[in-house]
Amino acid sequence: MSLITALIEALPAGTVVTDPDALAPYRWDRANDPDAGVPAAVVRATSTEDVQAVVRLAASTGTPVIPRGAGSGLSGGSTAVDGAIVISMERMREIHVNPATRMATVQPGAFNAEVKAAAAAHGLWYPPDPSSFEFCSIGGNVATNAGGLCCVKYGVTTDYVLGMTVVLADGRAVRLGGERIKDVAGLSLTKLFVGSEGALGVITEIVLRLVPAQRPPTTLVAIFPTLSGATGAVQAITRVTRPSMLEFMDRPTIAAVEATTRMGLDVTAAAMLVIQSDEHADAAAAEISAIEAICAEHGASECYATNDPDEGEAFVHARRIAIPAVERTGALLLEDVGVPIPRLGDLVLGIHAISASRDVPIAVIAHAGDGNTHPLIVHDPADTAQTARAHLAYGEVMDLAISLGGTITGEHGVGRLKRPWLADYLGPDVLELNERIKRALDPQGILNPGAVFARTDQDRPREA
Amino acid sequence: MSLITALIEALPAGTVVTDPDALAPYRWDRANDPDAGVPAAVVRATSTEDVQAVVRLAASTGTPVIPRGAGSGLSGGSTAVDGAIVISMERMREIHVNPATRMATVQPGAFNAEVKAAAAAHGLWYPPDPSSFEFCSIGGNVATNAGGLCCVKYGVTTDYVLGMTVVLADGRAVRLGGERIKDVAGLSLTKLFVGSEGALGVITEIVLRLVPAQRPPTTLVAIFPTLSGATGAVQAITRVTRPSMLEFMDRPTIAAVEATTRMGLDVTAAAMLVIQSDEHADAAAAEISAIEAICAEHGASECYATNDPDEGEAFVHARRIAIPAVERTGALLLEDVGVPIPRLGDLVLGIHAISASRDVPIAVIAHAGDGNTHPLIVHDPADTAQTARAHLAYGEVMDLAISLGGTITGEHGVGRLKRPWLADYLGPDVLELNERIKRALDPQGILNPGAVFARTDQDRPREA
Repeated sequence: MSLITALIEALPAGTVVTDPDALAPYRWDRANDPDAGVPAAVVRATSTEDVQAVVRLAASTGTPVIPRGAGSGLSGGSTAVDGAIVISMERMREIHVNPATRMATVQPGAFNAEVKAAAAAHGLWYPPDPSSFEFCSIGGNVATNAGGLCCVKYGVTTDYVLGMTVVLADGRAVRLGGERIKDVAGLSLTKLFVGSEGALGVITEIVLRLVPAQRPPTTLVAIFPTLSGATGAVQAITRVTRPSMLEFMDRPTIAAVEATTRMGLDVTAAAMLVIQSDEHADAAAAEISAIEAICAEHGASECYATNDPDEGEAFVHARRIAIPAVERTGALLLEDVGVPIPRLGDLVLGIHAISASRDVPIAVIAHAGDGNTHPLIVHDPADTAQTARAHLAYGEVMDLAISLGGTITGEHGVGRLKRPWLADYLGPDVLELNERIKRALDPQGILNPGAVFARTDQDRPREA
Repeated sequence: MSLITALIEALPAGTVVTDPDALAPYRWDRANDPDAGVPAAVVRATSTEDVQAVVRLAASTGTPVIPRGAGSGLSGGSTAVDGAIVISMERMREIHVNPATRMATVQPGAFNAEVKAAAAAHGLWYPPDPSSFEFCSIGGNVATNAGGLCCVKYGVTTDYVLGMTVVLADGRAVRLGGERIKDVAGLSLTKLFVGSEGALGVITEIVLRLVPAQRPPTTLVAIFPTLSGATGAVQAITRVTRPSMLEFMDRPTIAAVEATTRMGLDVTAAAMLVIQSDEHADAAAAEISAIEAICAEHGASECYATNDPDEGEAFVHARRIAIPAVERTGALLLEDVGVPIPRLGDLVLGIHAISASRDVPIAVIAHAGDGNTHPLIVHDPADTAQTARAHLAYGEVMDLAISLGGTITGEHGVGRLKRPWLADYLGPDVLELNERIKRALDPQGILNPGAVFARTDQDRPREA
């Protein structure tokens, strides 16, 4: 019996997709990997049992399994592999909020925004907020330990994951953790699976911790004539306080956003910070005022504060649409490097130097309070020489981050695009430790092969 | 060459302890395991290199290694094993605070209180605060993922660990994570080692995230004539707000604390809550007032609020000395079970029922806002029948927690004392998953053997 026949027999009607046209959209995520393979089938799973059936068949035949959330990943973690079974979570999106425990039990296909909305219906809040929150899945967030704008104060996805159901490489399903806030019985396996990018198991249910609703924020926008002023202010702010947002945009970003929004941003500025405080009224005023003073000390040419949430949201919106705004100027290679905060200035300056030396535009946005930047490398795919230079710049940005004590990915994951740099970042001993865990949990290597782990230098861009 | 001779040759002078009298204090931690073995040697390590030298020798000879912090563990995680090498971290206690990154790099032997003090010298705060913070080591805190009183708002140890140096079972030292706030490159190995109780590697350096200093708290004490009133109030409070402390003491605890302090506590009360808010002035007043109203709705007979930090500290002190106060009435078996918050009332009632049926006093204190309780089982070691009943009660409390969807340990670790219950709690598949990771990282099983992992039911107490 063929694999496809076996899948169709094992699963509910309408679950298995094999039509080539219908398969096509499942080959890529937002990384648009040109080397994406063609899967043998897509399973639009409806339950943990469906996923178990798929993984059991995959294990018995040595077939690769590619777990897939909403396909919004930026590192190619869901890129299809030839002959693989893609397990799509798009139909597994139930959300149950338990206000008594202040937790949500969710299926992986639910969008981040849907989890936020379900929590808000009970006066609760799920904080992690990737810029893609309206179209990224919570399962993908857990698989990459996704971050976002409020993480500077509220932490990242792993800080909110209390438990999960995972289908292991042999098809067994296990429940890790659960509706317990503190639990140290046995190894921290829940935390190990967060950020494992589908390479250790397939997550089919997640228990999330919620918190009381956030207070309406006060917003401060600060404009800087110099880059060093802005990054110096970021460092000075984070030494003394924890704003609920501390975002950075450089001049190329401001220009692109202004071209899109016509909201009157100062396109001559070197950088702009968007800062929020969600403290209680008096405390928010005091925090914003202290931050404003720090910005002034670091040479800010203009500071504008507002406690009108709608007006504040307009500036946050300017930050959130930076990626599509820059994308209007060309195709993007989207970076995700992070450094210790004192090196943020060196990182941004170095990125601008790479932009100049490779003659490709790079716009830098950053979750500055976390030292996590998203350099957006712009190129025209029709210009093969420029595209090649953009790919060289992509690698050089990671090399630069490593040289500054930083990481190659702060919140997007290694996936397939960043895999060639992982060994340089981790070093041989830590890489080998990663591989030992991988082999212990997936001895056949059927789970998301090619993501994170494969040791290869061949797909790293080289100068001609 | 004997192991001892090899150790002495490999290590700095004065590092290796073999004198039987000098070894004796290293056999036990605060769990006072009567089955503690006699180690072959204690190495009072001074550096990562010392630890590497020990582990290499241990690996080449198959000798067990027992990592040891301050010996304040309550689950027997540092109990010595016959013929083992105990690696004591008591001399590795350097602390470097970097205010620019708002992080501390610390050696594992530093006390939690020393880390807090070093952070405070820079206007910063390391939140996790086990009741033993004045005499427990930060390495032990990381090994057990320790909690404490402020964790209800500020999270547990793992939420503050950004990186570490670990000596692996073959003697290699690896650096995991580092001074980067967000980092998803490779598996979450840092998080895996937090809470691993010395069974996966020996942690020799830790990078901790610090936060700005806490505001002075406002304190509320609420007295309840019924247990259900107190636990109902806890649930209602946690549904709507996040106090910075939410502690519970039952009647036997109040009686013991009052006998020690003569501070005028109501010994007729069924339970008492000690609650703090560290919000900004007006917000703290509003939060405490809302909590006071909830307590009144749940039948509190008395509520007393103060924003005098010293007066508030007196009540927190009453809670912190509960364990020594109860210990004045007999020897303790100290439990650490946790449940989802809606089951807290059932847990406390069930514990009181076990106390009655086994005819052993049990006083219950709880980090109530986390659902994490410390039943203190009192017995007279000279009374062998009562001591046997106390051990039966100890197991029954864990069985009860499991039946209520809870955990056998919220913050102390499994160690050796709770090992017989781990299989019941995790179930066979998750236990096997734990063991697979253990084997992958410590194939010889030399790291803290007998802690956490050994599958045995023989040391579980049974009725005669």
